[in-house]
Amino acid sequence: MAEPFVVVGGDAAGLSAASKCKREAPEREVVVYEKGAWVSYAHCGEPYFVKGEVEKLEDLLSLTPEDVAERDIDLHRNHEVVGVSPDEKTVTVDGPDGEFEQDYGDLLVATGARPVTGPIQGSDLDGAFPVHGLDDAAAIRAFLLDPDEDALADVGGEAYVDRERVERFGAMEPPETAAIVGGGYVGVEMAEALSAHGLDVHVFQRGERPLGPFGEAVGDAVVDHLREQGVTWHLNEEVARLTGDGRVEHLECVGGSALDTELAVVGVGVRPNTDLLDGTDVEIGEDGAVVVDEHGQTSVDGVYAAGDCAEDDHVVTGESAWVPLGLTANRAGRAVGTTVAGDPTPVGTIAGTAVVKAFDLECGRVGLLEDGAREAGFDPVSETITAGSRSGYYPGAAETTVTLVADRESERLLGGSIVGTDRAAIRIDTVATALEGEMTVGDLERTDLAYAPPFSPVWDPILVAAKVLGGKLED
Amino acid sequence: MAEPFVVVGGDAAGLSAASKCKREAPEREVVVYEKGAWVSYAHCGEPYFVKGEVEKLEDLLSLTPEDVAERDIDLHRNHEVVGVSPDEKTVTVDGPDGEFEQDYGDLLVATGARPVTGPIQGSDLDGAFPVHGLDDAAAIRAFLLDPDEDALADVGGEAYVDRERVERFGAMEPPETAAIVGGGYVGVEMAEALSAHGLDVHVFQRGERPLGPFGEAVGDAVVDHLREQGVTWHLNEEVARLTGDGRVEHLECVGGSALDTELAVVGVGVRPNTDLLDGTDVEIGEDGAVVVDEHGQTSVDGVYAAGDCAEDDHVVTGESAWVPLGLTANRAGRAVGTTVAGDPTPVGTIAGTAVVKAFDLECGRVGLLEDGAREAGFDPVSETITAGSRSGYYPGAAETTVTLVADRESERLLGGSIVGTDRAAIRIDTVATALEGEMTVGDLERTDLAYAPPFSPVWDPILVAAKVLGGKLED
Repeated sequence: MAEPFVVVGGDAAGLSAASKCKREAPEREVVVYEKGAWVSYAHCGEPYFVKGEVEKLEDLLSLTPEDVAERDIDLHRNHEVVGVSPDEKTVTVDGPDGEFEQDYGDLLVATGARPVTGPIQGSDLDGAFPVHGLDDAAAIRAFLLDPDEDALADVGGEAYVDRERVERFGAMEPPETAAIVGGGYVGVEMAEALSAHGLDVHVFQRGERPLGPFGEAVGDAVVDHLREQGVTWHLNEEVARLTGDGRVEHLECVGGSALDTELAVVGVGVRPNTDLLDGTDVEIGEDGAVVVDEHGQTSVDGVYAAGDCAEDDHVVTGESAWVPLGLTANRAGRAVGTTVAGDPTPVGTIAGTAVVKAFDLECGRVGLLEDGAREAGFDPVSETITAGSRSGYYPGAAETTVTLVADRESERLLGGSIVGTDRAAIRIDTVATALEGEMTVGDLERTDLAYAPPFSPVWDPILVAAKVLGGKLED
Repeated sequence: MAEPFVVVGGDAAGLSAASKCKREAPEREVVVYEKGAWVSYAHCGEPYFVKGEVEKLEDLLSLTPEDVAERDIDLHRNHEVVGVSPDEKTVTVDGPDGEFEQDYGDLLVATGARPVTGPIQGSDLDGAFPVHGLDDAAAIRAFLLDPDEDALADVGGEAYVDRERVERFGAMEPPETAAIVGGGYVGVEMAEALSAHGLDVHVFQRGERPLGPFGEAVGDAVVDHLREQGVTWHLNEEVARLTGDGRVEHLECVGGSALDTELAVVGVGVRPNTDLLDGTDVEIGEDGAVVVDEHGQTSVDGVYAAGDCAEDDHVVTGESAWVPLGLTANRAGRAVGTTVAGDPTPVGTIAGTAVVKAFDLECGRVGLLEDGAREAGFDPVSETITAGSRSGYYPGAAETTVTLVADRESERLLGGSIVGTDRAAIRIDTVATALEGEMTVGDLERTDLAYAPPFSPVWDPILVAAKVLGGKLED
């Protein structure tokens, strides 16, 4: 009988792999070690839990530990894998009862990513949160409650939550002002969530616009829209430090501007968790993520990596890239589970497809925009258009701005972005599919997209963009 | 100087061609003959005008005759082209002052389609409407008004509308019951429009479900949903006749069932308008539409056809097919305009992409479903799944049903359908793009589609369908 399939990390990639392996090879022993108390939770749902649109923490669980046990997966929570010995085919596990060795036949490293707080001093003060994990979300929501409300009852998740932390923040007077450091996904989503609670929200962004990977058109639209919603932008402002007596009281920027605030959300990026691989021959890429082959196997035989700690092949460049996103993690985990069960399955490619809601704005991006395309060695031509989301006469038609980027010589589509209020985000899937199909701008322009007055004008905004970009390529 | 470019028909295909030709070759004389009073109107918007969501008839005009004149296009309304002589390169025009001959250098036949009323007797009675053209829409809305309201003021479009007809229906007592004959697009959209006015709506459908080209899953969902909305279905009922004393009073089915009603919407299909080509060598296909080459040229040199009267190449079969839809008409017209201006441009292919709103349901279809695929010589494998439109914990998540069809051996994707209440219809564009890219089920399954809780679950319903269909193909 094969040695056990050992999985490090009990979230999207890890439990997808464990579940799929068990389904395909029920006799195989599958052991999962998860460092924390939670498993299989929807990280992307945290802002909506803070906002209150999601009622209880447990609503964010895809699987409970009981569900996992029912799948006959040997799950150990609160167990951290601290080392790997590929020669011995063992991992070192640090659990509540001390360290021990675990043999493996195949190993999956699905350790995810961790938030960086960069050079920002004081980000360990109480009241500064990275919003990375359900305990952060629970603490923030408890903080927003009046002290006479029952914070534990409000947030739910009794079986797993850090009760002490929830009660501590629940007992504090709620903040009136919030500083959001970093205008990425988390920053933009948390601006919406905290505004909904009536806080005076300030977003600090080092560059000139938020949501860098979404490009200029989307970033500018988000600045305008959030401003209309009462959010204060501090653009081109780098936060230097948070200060206070044990708790956040004050924020200072490198350039000197400052804000009194009791709550700081620090979302300035994430980095792959790969410390457990230190000292092994597992190859690490330039972003710090694990390099894998088409089946998710690392440079060391029998050691796989998937999810936010691993690279994937980019569908446009064909090169390996690190783009930590939820679907990629689920898909790669599922593929690795199938592979170790005996049916080698490609983990697939990534296109960097991402969508984000910013109050009423829907934003999407995919592939390479102009800067990324140039860095990847293409000669990019980019065009941005604004068109209606529905027939002009139909109620609810809204301006939709689309950017498409193509390679000048081959006319191959390289990427795009979209922003608007009416079914804008989901339209990026059209561009994502065109990238997967390696289509040219002309191919996209000729595609028979849907038209009916309530849903789209005769020329969908994406077709308008393709038409205009096609014209520019002819010049 | 080139002989004039003569266009027959002043709607989507005709005016797209005329405008594009003028833009590309401003010196070329462009003459358009339109049989009716209206030009460039949004046929697809008529149900929403009847419903009242679109206020005035003129809101449905893309271009007014004045706009057309500003483009230096020589537009003649109320002029019907009744014959073509390719040998002489002339057309015979029947205008308000009698018949005359018009020379052409290039000719575009963009005469659209006309509603058929099939073998239904009495469909010429007052109160029976095909809903084909703005005058029908105006008359129906006038009919729905109380006699003491000003029907002409209500419907608008004073410069072009058939005033006598509007006033006549406006003076009638509004109907309380409506019979809709045919459960196609028009039928389903008109059921919504007339229900909004409080009418007791009955839909008669010859087959067992409506929206035939959308397949079983969509048709069944539409039956259930419209029933919940108070619409009465008469399925497997073929309407034999409408009877009454000058006006519709009664409807009778072949099988004997009957209904008293004052309003009957007859939407049982359309046929290409090609009578003017009788006696010429222009080849007509089996559906009665004009056969064209990749540039929209017919079998006769210098004679083009585009829009609802013409065939196009189907992206899946590679064969010519007649699928009259708005985008196809606009795109083909634009291509012909470019071609006759001296730059040969393909009219593109069709995928039969269609979307329709049925009350709160959004329906979409594209390519070939199971029956169509079998007829086209494929060995189709079909799978239907239901999945959430958003993360399950996010408010507004709604069941979305997707059907995908693939060829068993090649695993090439052939078509699909979708139905749901939350951003369902626009998702069909993903499948349409995959068809244009000639992708396999596996390619689609690996596509990096968007994920964020407010917009899509980790596995978009289309990915779930691709995954399940992919599994079935492996069996």
